[in-house]
Amino acid sequence: MNFSMKEAIEVLERTPKTLEYFLSGLSDGWLQCNEGEGTWNVSQVIGHLIEAEKNNWIPRLEFILQEGENKPFPPFDRYSHLNEGSDRPIEQKFLEFETIRTLNISKLKVLIEPELHLELTGYHPAFGIVKLRELLSTWVVHDLTHLAQIVRVMAERYRSDVGSWKEYLSILKRNE
Amino acid sequence: MNFSMKEAIEVLERTPKTLEYFLSGLSDGWLQCNEGEGTWNVSQVIGHLIEAEKNNWIPRLEFILQEGENKPFPPFDRYSHLNEGSDRPIEQKFLEFETIRTLNISKLKVLIEPELHLELTGYHPAFGIVKLRELLSTWVVHDLTHLAQIVRVMAERYRSDVGSWKEYLSILKRNE
Repeated sequence: MNFSMKEAIEVLERTPKTLEYFLSGLSDGWLQCNEGEGTWNVSQVIGHLIEAEKNNWIPRLEFILQEGENKPFPPFDRYSHLNEGSDRPIEQKFLEFETIRTLNISKLKVLIEPELHLELTGYHPAFGIVKLRELLSTWVVHDLTHLAQIVRVMAERYRSDVGSWKEYLSILKRNE
Repeated sequence: MNFSMKEAIEVLERTPKTLEYFLSGLSDGWLQCNEGEGTWNVSQVIGHLIEAEKNNWIPRLEFILQEGENKPFPPFDRYSHLNEGSDRPIEQKFLEFETIRTLNISKLKVLIEPELHLELTGYHPAFGIVKLRELLSTWVVHDLTHLAQIVRVMAERYRSDVGSWKEYLSILKRNE
């Protein structure tokens, strides 16, 4: 097991500003491109990260603390951010993500005493029994997954532009 | 073709500080982990990006301007950063990457007039004829590839920690 609260928080607290620094001020070409029909653009990925802050990580953590294995987690709709009426300005999304992430890290620190709580268990509607430390590890890896998705979506835009170099660029390999 | 000088520079100028913001101050566990024997840790990836700034992008661009298709590019050793005697502090690497990247973007702006130069051709030792705009597109996607690599290496560290959630985390799928 590599998980530690301290190291997990190191990543969680850096993600929003990292995204803001990397993406703010980019041309719409970078922010609106996607990997084809039914795939997300960069702005939609940020919307999904916000939704997960609202409805996934801390709510499930609180659910484990309250219910243990007694009831399955309420379902989390991984596509709900696509229902937003109009696409808000991405700067507004960065601010919302940063604000709610900061709040959630504060809640995490208040709610969880690593020595006491990491082995607590809950009931995932698809997987069955899961541990609280697995939920927290997943929160971190979920950030990393979507950071990887964002740069992959951007790279896709230049798939044909790189010409023969495509052979050397692993980021362009996965969709072939 | 999606490539434009302006949009390419938008990404190139953001990469060093994005990496610095995301990685500075992380515990050694995050900076020293890798994906197994013969793979790179985060600090080694930064070393590789620095090497490419010194010996790949601008030198090859200048080579195209001077030689056209007459001579193949001098080879670029993609592993030379592994020969550094000792691993320097990562903060020093961030500073070096940022400094040389800033200098190289300045050179790019001085050397290249998009209307005149993007279709110029050079001779790649493995691929044959390549275009200058393909080299510049590759510079951008190479940044994105290594950003993706860094978050993938970090995610790997929590592969077993996430438990059953592994199913939902695409970043953990590729090595299976």
